[in-house]
Amino acid sequence: MDKKGVKIVTIGGGSSYTPELMEGFIKRYEQLPIREIWLVDTAGGEEKLQIVGSLAQRMWDASPYKVDIHLTLDRREALPGADFVTTQIRVGLLNARIKDERIPLSHGQLGQETNGAGGMLKALRTVPVILEIVEDMKELCPDAWLINFANPSGIVTEAVLRYGGWEKCVGLCNVPINLMIKEPAMFGKTEEDYIFQFAGLNHFHYHRVYSAKDGRNLTSEFINQIFQVEDDGTPANIHKEKFIEEQLRAMDCIPCGYHRYYYMYSDMLRHELGQYEKHETRAELVKKTETELFEIYKNKELHVKPEQLSKRGGTYYSDAACECINSIYNNKGSIMVVSTRNQGALSDLPVDCAVEVSSRMTAKGPVPLAWGKFGPAERGWLQVMKAMEECIIEAAVKGDYGMALQAFQINPIVCGGRPAKALLDEMLVANEKFLPRFHDKIQELKRQGVTIKDDVVREICEKGL
Amino acid sequence: MDKKGVKIVTIGGGSSYTPELMEGFIKRYEQLPIREIWLVDTAGGEEKLQIVGSLAQRMWDASPYKVDIHLTLDRREALPGADFVTTQIRVGLLNARIKDERIPLSHGQLGQETNGAGGMLKALRTVPVILEIVEDMKELCPDAWLINFANPSGIVTEAVLRYGGWEKCVGLCNVPINLMIKEPAMFGKTEEDYIFQFAGLNHFHYHRVYSAKDGRNLTSEFINQIFQVEDDGTPANIHKEKFIEEQLRAMDCIPCGYHRYYYMYSDMLRHELGQYEKHETRAELVKKTETELFEIYKNKELHVKPEQLSKRGGTYYSDAACECINSIYNNKGSIMVVSTRNQGALSDLPVDCAVEVSSRMTAKGPVPLAWGKFGPAERGWLQVMKAMEECIIEAAVKGDYGMALQAFQINPIVCGGRPAKALLDEMLVANEKFLPRFHDKIQELKRQGVTIKDDVVREICEKGL
Amino acid sequence: MDKKGVKIVTIGGGSSYTPELMEGFIKRYEQLPIREIWLVDTAGGEEKLQIVGSLAQRMWDASPYKVDIHLTLDRREALPGADFVTTQIRVGLLNARIKDERIPLSHGQLGQETNGAGGMLKALRTVPVILEIVEDMKELCPDAWLINFANPSGIVTEAVLRYGGWEKCVGLCNVPINLMIKEPAMFGKTEEDYIFQFAGLNHFHYHRVYSAKDGRNLTSEFINQIFQVEDDGTPANIHKEKFIEEQLRAMDCIPCGYHRYYYMYSDMLRHELGQYEKHETRAELVKKTETELFEIYKNKELHVKPEQLSKRGGTYYSDAACECINSIYNNKGSIMVVSTRNQGALSDLPVDCAVEVSSRMTAKGPVPLAWGKFGPAERGWLQVMKAMEECIIEAAVKGDYGMALQAFQINPIVCGGRPAKALLDEMLVANEKFLPRFHDKIQELKRQGVTIKDDVVREICEKGL
Amino acid sequence: MDKKGVKIVTIGGGSSYTPELMEGFIKRYEQLPIREIWLVDTAGGEEKLQIVGSLAQRMWDASPYKVDIHLTLDRREALPGADFVTTQIRVGLLNARIKDERIPLSHGQLGQETNGAGGMLKALRTVPVILEIVEDMKELCPDAWLINFANPSGIVTEAVLRYGGWEKCVGLCNVPINLMIKEPAMFGKTEEDYIFQFAGLNHFHYHRVYSAKDGRNLTSEFINQIFQVEDDGTPANIHKEKFIEEQLRAMDCIPCGYHRYYYMYSDMLRHELGQYEKHETRAELVKKTETELFEIYKNKELHVKPEQLSKRGGTYYSDAACECINSIYNNKGSIMVVSTRNQGALSDLPVDCAVEVSSRMTAKGPVPLAWGKFGPAERGWLQVMKAMEECIIEAAVKGDYGMALQAFQINPIVCGGRPAKALLDEMLVANEKFLPRFHDKIQELKRQGVTIKDDVVREICEKGL
Repeated sequence: MDKKGVKIVTIGGGSSYTPELMEGFIKRYEQLPIREIWLVDTAGGEEKLQIVGSLAQRMWDASPYKVDIHLTLDRREALPGADFVTTQIRVGLLNARIKDERIPLSHGQLGQETNGAGGMLKALRTVPVILEIVEDMKELCPDAWLINFANPSGIVTEAVLRYGGWEKCVGLCNVPINLMIKEPAMFGKTEEDYIFQFAGLNHFHYHRVYSAKDGRNLTSEFINQIFQVEDDGTPANIHKEKFIEEQLRAMDCIPCGYHRYYYMYSDMLRHELGQYEKHETRAELVKKTETELFEIYKNKELHVKPEQLSKRGGTYYSDAACECINSIYNNKGSIMVVSTRNQGALSDLPVDCAVEVSSRMTAKGPVPLAWGKFGPAERGWLQVMKAMEECIIEAAVKGDYGMALQAFQINPIVCGGRPAKALLDEMLVANEKFLPRFHDKIQELKRQGVTIKDDVVREICEKGL
Repeated sequence: MDKKGVKIVTIGGGSSYTPELMEGFIKRYEQLPIREIWLVDTAGGEEKLQIVGSLAQRMWDASPYKVDIHLTLDRREALPGADFVTTQIRVGLLNARIKDERIPLSHGQLGQETNGAGGMLKALRTVPVILEIVEDMKELCPDAWLINFANPSGIVTEAVLRYGGWEKCVGLCNVPINLMIKEPAMFGKTEEDYIFQFAGLNHFHYHRVYSAKDGRNLTSEFINQIFQVEDDGTPANIHKEKFIEEQLRAMDCIPCGYHRYYYMYSDMLRHELGQYEKHETRAELVKKTETELFEIYKNKELHVKPEQLSKRGGTYYSDAACECINSIYNNKGSIMVVSTRNQGALSDLPVDCAVEVSSRMTAKGPVPLAWGKFGPAERGWLQVMKAMEECIIEAAVKGDYGMALQAFQINPIVCGGRPAKALLDEMLVANEKFLPRFHDKIQELKRQGVTIKDDVVREICEKGL
Repeated sequence: MDKKGVKIVTIGGGSSYTPELMEGFIKRYEQLPIREIWLVDTAGGEEKLQIVGSLAQRMWDASPYKVDIHLTLDRREALPGADFVTTQIRVGLLNARIKDERIPLSHGQLGQETNGAGGMLKALRTVPVILEIVEDMKELCPDAWLINFANPSGIVTEAVLRYGGWEKCVGLCNVPINLMIKEPAMFGKTEEDYIFQFAGLNHFHYHRVYSAKDGRNLTSEFINQIFQVEDDGTPANIHKEKFIEEQLRAMDCIPCGYHRYYYMYSDMLRHELGQYEKHETRAELVKKTETELFEIYKNKELHVKPEQLSKRGGTYYSDAACECINSIYNNKGSIMVVSTRNQGALSDLPVDCAVEVSSRMTAKGPVPLAWGKFGPAERGWLQVMKAMEECIIEAAVKGDYGMALQAFQINPIVCGGRPAKALLDEMLVANEKFLPRFHDKIQELKRQGVTIKDDVVREICEKGL
Repeated sequence: MDKKGVKIVTIGGGSSYTPELMEGFIKRYEQLPIREIWLVDTAGGEEKLQIVGSLAQRMWDASPYKVDIHLTLDRREALPGADFVTTQIRVGLLNARIKDERIPLSHGQLGQETNGAGGMLKALRTVPVILEIVEDMKELCPDAWLINFANPSGIVTEAVLRYGGWEKCVGLCNVPINLMIKEPAMFGKTEEDYIFQFAGLNHFHYHRVYSAKDGRNLTSEFINQIFQVEDDGTPANIHKEKFIEEQLRAMDCIPCGYHRYYYMYSDMLRHELGQYEKHETRAELVKKTETELFEIYKNKELHVKPEQLSKRGGTYYSDAACECINSIYNNKGSIMVVSTRNQGALSDLPVDCAVEVSSRMTAKGPVPLAWGKFGPAERGWLQVMKAMEECIIEAAVKGDYGMALQAFQINPIVCGGRPAKALLDEMLVANEKFLPRFHDKIQELKRQGVTIKDDVVREICEKGL
């Protein structure tokens, strides 16, 4: 890449996260000299793009650095010559997330917008769009890196590697970075005092911790402490149900916050159903926060990332993203936890699939640290989740209803049988606009009388959103 | 083995199935000349052993063949010189099955006595006993084959291969033999018209069907037909919930009857809860049938297998068992579906684990037919079930509560989280007498106030059964 | 396939083996009713095709069955409607085999026309032609089976599976069938007294033997006997150098006759160099035999397979071939040792590669019997040979000189370094006419001064053969 | 480990390399504060131990640091409380190396003292001793790291991991560190300008090189340059036969210097035979150098590592060793190429075997960087070498002649057949004193008339060395 300055293209640039990203880039400018930034969004997001784009420009203008922000609705205008393309798209916007969470709950099932029923629908909507972006990149910026934050981040990475034929792809997530900050704090220590090693799938990874002093495996001591403290590093957006202590001991590794939806399934479901009744699903709260945020962003006096953004969730996301770009650009050799091609690092999963794993970040991309074998239970969980990912991706790419059904049935947090089918059917119908590859099937489902039961979702659908 | 005559030792010989077995041996005597038969049972089953033993002797006396039935409560008396040791033990008798089914349902969860919560408890009770039998065999009849029908048959086989260090073990099940008879009948054909290939785990296998005429893959035509007919070969003891057609099409292979508990989870649960309310769980029905059967067996005039036994379930079980022994004894080279060491036949599972697979039956035991890879969903299901099996076996062997909890959490038909732990805890307490390796943990659970909630089970426990 | 009668197309029909094949078909006619037979050859083989075609017709005319033999130089005329296509081609005829054997020996290296230097050259010539045949079959007889006897049979099968996209392919070899007849004879027994299990690669397989009476592993007793007897089943065309007894004991399995070229490398090389000096390489002997054979074939009175053919080698080849076709046609379920897709049967080799393995022969083709893991040495040998196969196939398909060099260097019976390159170079130049994909490289080599040193080969080349 | 100061125990401390090691420790003292150093040797090496021990103490005395050197012939005296145990033993001293090199050459075969015939004999002598050291460490310093430089370093590491049950073991080699210095120098650059990734086995690894600026794969450009320059990083002790350019291009990775013995087998053999004739085998040269070195070491005025040591070979060995210890002690996270447990990093080799691989050096030891799959040829070479390693280790541990023979036959640089057996037999007899586990077999061989043919070796043997 051109060492005179980096060109960044952010697809989904109208996201409320963009100021985070700008702050991250400004902070790192001396190491990572940005030449230009392009924010790309779709027609539906044009207003937000304008608002956030203006704020972004004001942030740079207030910095010591001269960087131009370009706004466009046409990604093919933005891509030529890009060094890094970051994707933070949300096909169907937050209304789609409301569907992802409320429809399952209206069926008495968990939504879980990253690897549950909601996440699988998100994959159906997102994968085809990402693969189109990759096709454009092959043509317009064949040397660029694709840095994906769009969820489900691991599934998207798997799709890009398997169907996109594009190796230069990194999937990001802020869960590990949070854990590496919060867990040491449980002991009044910092990340430097420990060696962390992560392995698994996005939002479904495990880690072990060792002493940086003498290499001793401290995982069981960390497990002990997790049950003593208030803040164990679980993301703010996840209900803090405690794990079962005996189970974590049997694992000898620490699951991530999202594992709660699996290991504490019934308990999380009960909580989410309560949120559903109160119209406080995560999607609804975020939508409210976003509206407030964009009001704040409009303020022409504002030229820093506003305080309120931290409420939005996604802490350290921009740190993860900017540091990933920085590490690749400067061949830093730092260790980050990213979604990348397995290469054997997790020997229980296919050698060429996407995994989320502690990796050495270099100019040639992430090089995974080998983890080896898991115990039987963790192995089984990861294998079943990877199977679900493969099914939903195949469904997304081919518009294959049967594979979507297979994904819903095998997903451990979807209750199987006819209710799983009923759930899938209603979600497909509710997402008709964003699932062109399922067009015929959706018409058939509608003829069979599949309708939307949840009031909030029905209203969104009736508005054609 | 001694070609002058075969010595059979049947552990759990007091089972109501024994007359089936006798009939099977009598039918095959010309091929498989029996020298002597030993029926072994425990003190608790002595009365049944006497009843069924007398009937067995009457059956042989009415045959053209002179075979002596020996009864004993000491398996070490029976084992020396055995050629085949068959195990059909039920640790804790049918009362234990009642616990396995009723406790989960009292928690609103599925029991499923073969690979659900009930099956896992059965494994905890059964695995240590089978491993003790294997130790005795090593000493007393080191050339004998262990032919296991005790459920969970696949888990028991895995335990024997992994922890018993005993290769000459075959696990049996009557599900495949039934399918190979019933599915052709859907088309007015017989087994000879088709090539069946099975692969998977016990009570969790898949199969494909091909034309014996031209080798064409007929699996999708069989799937079509399954949705047209009344009797698709599902065992009589399983509620006949139809699968979802689109899912079977996406599989391109046919699941077994027990897959219903997984693919039709919610629907099966609803049905089982109804049976629970009516005190018509399978265990309760079987217990009633057994009482009637033993009344009939007592009739000194009876010297054939009575009609009523067929109601008991287990059709063709004795055919499977006697034919397996016959095939090994006579090196028949016939194809049977048995639990045996994988040897790579299912490349998605560990090369040395136990699988249930179409195998060529020879004097050196079953040789699995290679199946290769599954599609992603079937692969994932099998991998997660194998993981569950490994966890529950490790728990059984080591008395490890954490691993038992891991097994309960990963089992796809146990609803995860605290309810899974509560279920496990109550089941452990209810099985105290049969779980010596969990003694300390059970005392701890009792101190924590874990009690039995279901009336029927509580009564059984209070009687010390 | 049409049960009214089978259409056979034999490519390379002008081969001296064809009468063997005819005899095999006549013998099996009641089970395998032939409708018509097409013998196909190239222009260069037209005369032989006429001679052998006439004999074939006379053989059928002398039988009770009416079958017409069709002769053609255009395989596209023959293929439509074929049920079985057998390939016994020899690209470059026996002159090519002379090159395959004499050039290496003129370099002091082993030729070994199946998986040594000669075999690799044969693969370079043969693979592209077989893949063209497969393309024609896709178009003209998409339901037919390809039964390949052309050597290197395993490499050809691997190429068809990997690059041809054609599943209905079986590779045949007469080595296992010979062993299963000859080894029992060492003890005055027959094949029925034993259970044989084979696994490996073509001309590089191992087997174990068990008692059909009690399943006991008799492999070590067979190994003992091999060192006691004259005829241990080694093919007549292989110099009978004894293996080293201690090595076979350490294996606990029995290598095939061709393993001599590997395990007894130096000794075999010494012997072959002697044959080379005497102009008695196998190729030269066979060429002489063939000339004699065709003289005999010309005799219009002859209407049976002549005695002298047995000297040609390839005993039981036609039995293997005809029985393979018969087994598929009649779904016999018999066990044959064939080259087919691994499917995990040999867990040390890629799950989807071609292996030679005891398989159950059914209407849907061969189903491999699972073998599991090998000991470290056998595993290593098989892995290195499979690597060689993959390299030479890639070289053949792409005309890739570097990959051909990799194959020559990794082949354990080619002495590595510059001599391996010199050998490859000379062999390429000598085969110019049959290696169109290497045309440019061969011109370059000729410009670099690569010439043919062996007189016999140079003469052949100068004649343009 | 005790942060107040590190205790080092060097087994084989009488080696001429020890001054290198001392220099390395002195250079790093500020980072790696040494508390005490124990040099251990056997009775046969006592004189050297005294000489080198005195020099070592003088070197420390001349440094700003106060470190005591302890000398002992009893390793159990030295081990208690050790933090790092380094092993640089040479069982049988340089006389054994003379046997390892001269006997094969006297048979017209390559010696190759690391993974050829010589290396395999060295493994037979060394593995049992190392496993005894590990047993002592388990008892006396269970938290210590074993840092092995004894060749064959990879085989020793494999033995420790597989049979020793000791995880804290790192195998070292100076080949990669040399390449990372020399190869950049071909372009006038330094290591920092590139990303190197190594994977393979000890003395049998491959690497790729990427730009540190933009991550581009520069391997093919490096390959080009290798054929342009004099010094491509090949160790000084290896004859600089050029590789064949086309082969390296087909690999797309760079072999190590020792690969010459494989890829340039015939050429290297010719060269070594020349050295043999001139009595200039590496062993003989080294023995001479060593005698000179120890004369120099005796000089009481000497208190630095003498210049002449660099001629001995093993450049940067002490840098590798001391930096490895430093990295573990200080959790540096630097990348080193070491022998360690695979953990899936090379997906073509067993997940739990020892590999030599670029690893991140941490307080918990090396964490391998995942490499993924190799091309078919490299995969095959590595698999056959790993098979050889497993065979020779099993032979060493069990004293199993058959497995030793299997190792000799599969080793690609031993010419197979009876000559391989003759070579093994003579080498066993020549090493009688150091192979107690082969005692009976060696007596048998002697009775069969196996004798030593090479004069130099016979003389050594007659002296009982």
